[in-house]
Amino acid sequence: MNKPMLQVALDTDTTAQALTVARKVADVVDVVEAGTLLIYQEGMSAVSDLRAIAPDKIILADAKVADAGGHVGKVATNAGADWMTCINAATVQTMAQAQNEIEVQVELYEGWDDKKRAQAWLDNDIDQVVYHQSRDAKAAGQVWGEKDLASVKSLIDMGFKVSVTGGVEPEILKLFKGVPVYTFIAGRAIHGADDPHAAALEFKKEIDRIWS
Amino acid sequence: MNKPMLQVALDTDTTAQALTVARKVADVVDVVEAGTLLIYQEGMSAVSDLRAIAPDKIILADAKVADAGGHVGKVATNAGADWMTCINAATVQTMAQAQNEIEVQVELYEGWDDKKRAQAWLDNDIDQVVYHQSRDAKAAGQVWGEKDLASVKSLIDMGFKVSVTGGVEPEILKLFKGVPVYTFIAGRAIHGADDPHAAALEFKKEIDRIWS
Repeated sequence: MNKPMLQVALDTDTTAQALTVARKVADVVDVVEAGTLLIYQEGMSAVSDLRAIAPDKIILADAKVADAGGHVGKVATNAGADWMTCINAATVQTMAQAQNEIEVQVELYEGWDDKKRAQAWLDNDIDQVVYHQSRDAKAAGQVWGEKDLASVKSLIDMGFKVSVTGGVEPEILKLFKGVPVYTFIAGRAIHGADDPHAAALEFKKEIDRIWS
Repeated sequence: MNKPMLQVALDTDTTAQALTVARKVADVVDVVEAGTLLIYQEGMSAVSDLRAIAPDKIILADAKVADAGGHVGKVATNAGADWMTCINAATVQTMAQAQNEIEVQVELYEGWDDKKRAQAWLDNDIDQVVYHQSRDAKAAGQVWGEKDLASVKSLIDMGFKVSVTGGVEPEILKLFKGVPVYTFIAGRAIHGADDPHAAALEFKKEIDRIWS
């Protein structure tokens, strides 16, 4: 079983804040994400700047694209991104056009639970999804549990590479023991830590322990 | 019956391009939209800059927010926006937290057609929706028709203020005769025109003719 990768989600307000964290954790993580909130604030220059300081890492533009997939895919590629997210509410055409320009991940928010649509993504060579607990739903008390695990497994069984995000802490990783999660995405657990480098290492150690 | 408003969607690559168009049409339109594609490229400064040159118009930040609604709502308000979009795939919590900060419009992409969820939006004081034909679906040959009209009417009957967008041209307005559409949103039909001011006036004239 491949070991899950570790992704840091940089949902900071400014590019400078994101660069500060990226500089500290780039040697530990596999994927550096320009978060949606950062792109809203700073635009695609945040992606180029992260690319510049993490030249050998996968860079993800978490744009959650709903439309004009080809156009935004091209823009993200030009900015130096390797991957880009589309929202599950985008049409299959939008995702397919994005996939022509860049590696697409589909972010699974409300209303994604339709196997027929998910199969259409696979049929269009889109095989990455991000299983998600919404930040706001987490704040309202949702916790990770068996239901999430079953959803992740069923997506993997369909043939998806599944990344997992939304309040991911080192303690929740063991819930996924034996499951070939593609990437664990940690945001505030890393960039909000007093020592982001140590926090990233803690994730890596836990991944090594559980998936060795 | 109130007359529909006219909104220009500025999905340009640069803020300068958006300002060039906004300057020409600000005296005609009711709502100036910083498009998703523009926000992806330039960040929220595009919103502030449009606010600066259209101080007496409604400014919409078309961020299509999927998560962290309260945070992004605050950021958009601080940038000078009056309205902000959320994507239909956002949780109701996300939308409600956004609505605490700014007037929210829900953008209806794939999977929105669930009256129970739409009713939950109304129950959370979110009464604006944007009925949409995706840019990519349009490119694949979708056209405006009776099915769209029926959907728009049923949303109005539920109690929503419904804006209409996606390849809107002056010719399609008459399809909605007798229907109290809240806003018609035109993008490339205005900003892609040789004379954006004349193009905006043509929309206004057609609205005046049909809803007088």
